[in-house]
Amino acid sequence: MTSMNQQWRLVRRPQGTIQPGDFTWHEIPVRPLEEGEVLVRQLYLSLDPTNRVWAATDSYLPAVAVGDVMRGVGVGRVEDSRHPGFRTGELVQGLLGWQRFEISSGRGLTRVPSLPGVEPAMFLHVLGHIGLTAWAGVLQVGRLQSGETMVVTAAAGAVGSIAGQIGKIRGGRVIGVAGSDEKCDWLTRDLGFDGAINYKTQPVRARLQALCPDGIDVQFENVGGALLDAALAHLKIGGRVALCGLIAGYAAATAPPGIANLHYLVSRRARIEGFLVSDFASRAREAYGELHGWLTEGRLKVRFTIVDGLGEAPAALNRLFDGSHDGKLLVRID
Amino acid sequence: MTSMNQQWRLVRRPQGTIQPGDFTWHEIPVRPLEEGEVLVRQLYLSLDPTNRVWAATDSYLPAVAVGDVMRGVGVGRVEDSRHPGFRTGELVQGLLGWQRFEISSGRGLTRVPSLPGVEPAMFLHVLGHIGLTAWAGVLQVGRLQSGETMVVTAAAGAVGSIAGQIGKIRGGRVIGVAGSDEKCDWLTRDLGFDGAINYKTQPVRARLQALCPDGIDVQFENVGGALLDAALAHLKIGGRVALCGLIAGYAAATAPPGIANLHYLVSRRARIEGFLVSDFASRAREAYGELHGWLTEGRLKVRFTIVDGLGEAPAALNRLFDGSHDGKLLVRID
Repeated sequence: MTSMNQQWRLVRRPQGTIQPGDFTWHEIPVRPLEEGEVLVRQLYLSLDPTNRVWAATDSYLPAVAVGDVMRGVGVGRVEDSRHPGFRTGELVQGLLGWQRFEISSGRGLTRVPSLPGVEPAMFLHVLGHIGLTAWAGVLQVGRLQSGETMVVTAAAGAVGSIAGQIGKIRGGRVIGVAGSDEKCDWLTRDLGFDGAINYKTQPVRARLQALCPDGIDVQFENVGGALLDAALAHLKIGGRVALCGLIAGYAAATAPPGIANLHYLVSRRARIEGFLVSDFASRAREAYGELHGWLTEGRLKVRFTIVDGLGEAPAALNRLFDGSHDGKLLVRID
Repeated sequence: MTSMNQQWRLVRRPQGTIQPGDFTWHEIPVRPLEEGEVLVRQLYLSLDPTNRVWAATDSYLPAVAVGDVMRGVGVGRVEDSRHPGFRTGELVQGLLGWQRFEISSGRGLTRVPSLPGVEPAMFLHVLGHIGLTAWAGVLQVGRLQSGETMVVTAAAGAVGSIAGQIGKIRGGRVIGVAGSDEKCDWLTRDLGFDGAINYKTQPVRARLQALCPDGIDVQFENVGGALLDAALAHLKIGGRVALCGLIAGYAAATAPPGIANLHYLVSRRARIEGFLVSDFASRAREAYGELHGWLTEGRLKVRFTIVDGLGEAPAALNRLFDGSHDGKLLVRID
């Protein structure tokens, strides 16, 4: 029995928001496995801001080649295996791509544990790259200490919402910056943030001053642009900016204005440090142990926005940049 | 016998370059010392880019109050003392201000050692705040390792020229960025830099690519603006920007464009860290020991631009920003 694969291939580097003609849809039969290969049926595809960078330009990874299947992280089930390390029916996670089926050599493919009450999508959220990113940014890069003040931008997003909750668990005061009153309410009422700023309707610098009168110890930065400039002006001496991403610039048709306030790094003896989740693979077991513990204790709350159907992936990617999603954005494939 | 003091007082916050009306000249008698005070006759006044910031705005220090004597670091000789810690004739260094005589409580005043063959101006250069800034930036903030590549901007300036030479002594490859061919020749021929870039006549990014084909490990940044953006695009994974200053913006009448290339900090897992020399007071003995050793061995070369007469101080400060000086800029008062 031959299954049909469905794929989105990148055919044009996007400019600004994703356009219908940037990807093309292909349906091709799944070829037979060779020795050492494993066939994965993808269940959920993760949509992350960094995908937009992968489509556009070389970065920490080479850009997706024009004509190739679009790169993406997903969770799936082993459908068939001629690889000694994987058995049919196992749940796996990795760079499965924007497609229904992936044939893998096993490299980069990770078995995920079967945990009672944990559904597969969670391995693309707090028990996957999202959780590890937040854990590393708050604790390893930002080095938040109990009693310190942390500000998180894109705080209602997947990484931001987990980062803020980790900050609370570790004894920090946490302020979130988000793009709607509903998101701000979620942060303060449901997630226990100490305060929230709606950057679309409130003056960010004045609100930072009011909510962080002694300044910011750790800025968990996902956005850049004017929000980062405001935070720099408000850093404490010895402050740390954990630079996770700069989504303000990822999907902009024209480059946003540059950062004007770097001079505060000198007067405040502060630093900006970029990081990638892939550098923390050696800490993953420790991080997932903590994250799973907090999750089962009910101390970490998660939100998903789930889009149905692989066909929706290109249009859905834009939702990461217009704010029309909550928490983790996923595509459910089956 | 009453001596006359001469002073420059700040009367207007400068906009752009220093104008004649920003300071006024005062001549007043030196009042008698009270118990616990020391009278210092200033020999040399240091002019540093940070002075321009002090005159304009609050930073790591409060702005100089309008009406006050302009703040500055100098070296002088104790003329008279009613302080148990200082004796007439001793050489001292501290915030003596833009004036001939300073009456001090002794706080912030440091006795400098009498070293054979070392003339007083050297305590405003490699054996003073300049040398300690360079030492801390290269070794403590940049953490340059033997075999690594360091780029220094404003490399023919006081701090930059010492930073680059420390980099060479510690086994680094060092590239300097300066504003004239003569300065570049000095860096490569006399100071042993491995390469130099004249940013006024050469394409900086292409030259960085040619001179640092494997990228930059440490950027010793004094300038900011387009030079910093070029360096960010060229950082190695794990690169460090030791942010000493951002002189591109200090005397500009309008703010320069912001920094556009911060996203490289993420893809290169790199950092920008600001620092102030005052935070390294506890390391000063160790640093000056090394610096004095290298100086006496002939491994550190220094240049001064000395302007005669306290009256010239305001106009001379502008020379830090137009490139019309070499090495350390000082005003000789007597």
